Amino acid sequence: MTVTSFNPRSGKAVTSVQETTAEQFSDILRAASTAAPALAATRPADRQRWLHAIADAFEARREELAELADRETALGSDRLTNEIARTSGQLRLYGDVAAEGSYLGVTLDEPTTDASGLVRVNRPIGPVAVFGASNFPFAFSVPGNDTAAAIAAGCPVVVKAHPAHVGLSMRQAEIVQAVLREQGAPEGAFGIVNGHQVGVDLVQASEIAAVAFTGSQDVGMRLWRLANERDVVIPVYAEMGTVNPVVVTGSAAKDITGVADGFVESFTLGHGQFCTKPGLLLAPAGSRAAEEVAGALRRAAPEPVMLTRAIAESVVAGIERLKDGGAHVVENLRPKTQGWTAPAAVLRADISALKRGSRLLEECFGAVVLVCEYRSDEELTDVLDELQGALAASIMTGPEDDDAHVGGLVSRLSRKVGRVACNQWPTGVGYTWAQQHGGPWPSTSVPSATSVGAYGLDRFVRPVAFQSAHDTWLPPEARSDNPWQLPRRINGRLVSSSGIAS
Amino acid sequence: MTVTSFNPRSGKAVTSVQETTAEQFSDILRAASTAAPALAATRPADRQRWLHAIADAFEARREELAELADRETALGSDRLTNEIARTSGQLRLYGDVAAEGSYLGVTLDEPTTDASGLVRVNRPIGPVAVFGASNFPFAFSVPGNDTAAAIAAGCPVVVKAHPAHVGLSMRQAEIVQAVLREQGAPEGAFGIVNGHQVGVDLVQASEIAAVAFTGSQDVGMRLWRLANERDVVIPVYAEMGTVNPVVVTGSAAKDITGVADGFVESFTLGHGQFCTKPGLLLAPAGSRAAEEVAGALRRAAPEPVMLTRAIAESVVAGIERLKDGGAHVVENLRPKTQGWTAPAAVLRADISALKRGSRLLEECFGAVVLVCEYRSDEELTDVLDELQGALAASIMTGPEDDDAHVGGLVSRLSRKVGRVACNQWPTGVGYTWAQQHGGPWPSTSVPSATSVGAYGLDRFVRPVAFQSAHDTWLPPEARSDNPWQLPRRINGRLVSSSGIAS
Repeated sequence: MTVTSFNPRSGKAVTSVQETTAEQFSDILRAASTAAPALAATRPADRQRWLHAIADAFEARREELAELADRETALGSDRLTNEIARTSGQLRLYGDVAAEGSYLGVTLDEPTTDASGLVRVNRPIGPVAVFGASNFPFAFSVPGNDTAAAIAAGCPVVVKAHPAHVGLSMRQAEIVQAVLREQGAPEGAFGIVNGHQVGVDLVQASEIAAVAFTGSQDVGMRLWRLANERDVVIPVYAEMGTVNPVVVTGSAAKDITGVADGFVESFTLGHGQFCTKPGLLLAPAGSRAAEEVAGALRRAAPEPVMLTRAIAESVVAGIERLKDGGAHVVENLRPKTQGWTAPAAVLRADISALKRGSRLLEECFGAVVLVCEYRSDEELTDVLDELQGALAASIMTGPEDDDAHVGGLVSRLSRKVGRVACNQWPTGVGYTWAQQHGGPWPSTSVPSATSVGAYGLDRFVRPVAFQSAHDTWLPPEARSDNPWQLPRRINGRLVSSSGIAS
Repeated sequence: MTVTSFNPRSGKAVTSVQETTAEQFSDILRAASTAAPALAATRPADRQRWLHAIADAFEARREELAELADRETALGSDRLTNEIARTSGQLRLYGDVAAEGSYLGVTLDEPTTDASGLVRVNRPIGPVAVFGASNFPFAFSVPGNDTAAAIAAGCPVVVKAHPAHVGLSMRQAEIVQAVLREQGAPEGAFGIVNGHQVGVDLVQASEIAAVAFTGSQDVGMRLWRLANERDVVIPVYAEMGTVNPVVVTGSAAKDITGVADGFVESFTLGHGQFCTKPGLLLAPAGSRAAEEVAGALRRAAPEPVMLTRAIAESVVAGIERLKDGGAHVVENLRPKTQGWTAPAAVLRADISALKRGSRLLEECFGAVVLVCEYRSDEELTDVLDELQGALAASIMTGPEDDDAHVGGLVSRLSRKVGRVACNQWPTGVGYTWAQQHGGPWPSTSVPSATSVGAYGLDRFVRPVAFQSAHDTWLPPEARSDNPWQLPRRINGRLVSSSGIAS
């Protein structure tokens, strides 16, 4: 059995790899399991060094990798080269976060005459299964956020390669493994597997301690259910995404042409295959928003080439689903080029149709959006309450807007999403300390977690408290003499390695 | 329909209350839902004040409450009076943790020429359903850890009263509600419901954002499954407990009589109805540990009166289950007193019978323990790998023990539990900053969470990032001028309200 990738521009086969055999699978799991305590015992500063070295290796092979990726994804050389730079930046960030050490959450209650000493530290949970996403072949795939955060936290990783870019995935895995070996990381710290059933087996393998996934609702929910059927249930951090809403205020609508241009630029990024793609624009009645967006789309004249044949077909089906839900097509640009192309479309619906359970509130991957007009603030806020949980929302304001009014909308949006962007489109997700990429169910399966940003490490650790233990019995991060010079909380007060913080 | 509590000493009815009607239920949910944004907008320092006032109110009614509790639980006046003091202490701790503000996780990336400003803060998730435990009628019940942590984090609470102490629960609810009203908390910040089906409906109510539970595997798993069947799945923080193991080293076994006395004292606490009860003692071969524990048990001569008839029956069934699993009774003290009494028993099994899936590894509530002897270090460590995830473990060492050997055992135990106690029994769970009360599946449903200690608040918040927002649009905790003087992380560095920390 083989897994084959295709060129979306031609539909022709690019690379075939063998599915992971039962024997290889069990070797990879055994190696990950053996590596777990060894990796947990490494210094965060060492893991930082490995991740920086992986980042360097990817940057050094930028051209080769972007070319390989383009053949399997049709995302274009510029975008892919940028994505490699982003991926390297992410790898470095997670390494730096590990070395900074706050993620260890070291909390020390010194002994008193009444109470014994207690120290609580976050320990790596063990091997993590990472399911690569189709739409970001680097940044959310083999060396992406999940892999980098898990290794940074001290957990071995077993990647299930995405079949759409299996050639690139295997090449990336080679690079990661070579660097880890060169850097002296424990054997088994990183593995990769191929095949559909192998992915199912991976989620159910007793060696695996957590699953990280970026992709569709359908697949994410299947993995979540599989993990919940295990004897020892494990967390599934599935970042799936839904419909990210954009609110346009009355004042912002005065420049509806500018808003429409920005909206089109955002929802056509990566051919509309971003999980943060804005899928619903809520504009004031009379703003002619739908027509303006349609006009902007015609000016942009995108030619979306989708990652897979299935995605291309799903775009057409998604437009039909929106029509079934009561939406009307304002513009439907049919592709002129060859390959797995898909239309780009703007639909309009009466806002009263946006009710919980409506098909209009389901995500449509691709460059397809819905525009609705609200006739009053009450109608707008009522509709916001009907939306599904989403990753991100945007609000577009203007100079005449009242601060309290905007603040109220920002607050209401914040109950439905993980990130509220003000006068910015939701599609840019910086990898920083403050990033939150994860929203209420069903956009993510664990809404308190993030798959991008410094707090991504928190998914792969579990706190353990040690009571009345001698220093010599403890891992270094838990020792009272603080050999790694970590920020700590001592008797309730934050303390840096060099003094008291608060 | 009514819910009736009974006196475990006589089996006679104590209090009957009406089950919550459908109308009352919907009123309580509506009130909680309305209170949620109001509560989220309060200052942590205000919630600290409320929680301290509730603590004062409970302490002022200590005698009345302990007497009421004793009639429904038979736990005895001393223990119950101590538990009230503990409960008040917990309430104050969670208030103090809220006021300190680190739980808000304020993280600020200042804008740069390349990137927009971003601030991430933890926001309250909304109404929390708290299922009171039978075995701690105060500390893990109506005003217990879950309720206090949820209110501290800014979430309304709806308690499902435990039927075994329904009279006490309603009285406690009266006190909590009176104090909250007096303190000016939003109406609906706290509610209580009664009835089995009402509990099921509560988990499935769309207004509820999370469930906190302390109790049996059976009920905890049912709640977890119910929540997973919702349209919008919500987290269930179920603290269920399993078999907490104790390892006795060769050196510690030289005083096996002392170990046995301590073990008996620990496992008979609260008539063996602690979720941290040590249920399995692993001692070196030839230590005569089982006989010594049996002797210590005869000297202690406990007369366990269980919380409910069902628990009393489950103790007898649990002993039979251990026998079915291959254990032999060394001592089985049958109760002499009246009421819902249960035996106290010591069983022994060959260590080779402790295999994954064995009935010997299932929890037996009550003063029943299993003792096994290990013939080599390898046999011991192999057995530790077979154990289920548990809340806590103890290791008893002696002066001749090698530090590296003890460290290895501590490390191995730490992979199986949330807390490792060294030369202390696991039954004391301090409510402090560093406490961790929650272990790997299936001892808790979310092993990264704790139901006791400062980090308990983290269960009831969800991070939201605000991108490029004006200060005036943001909640106070997210504003750049830091009006609440919170500890923050700015551009990756921990900063106290008065300066830089690391």
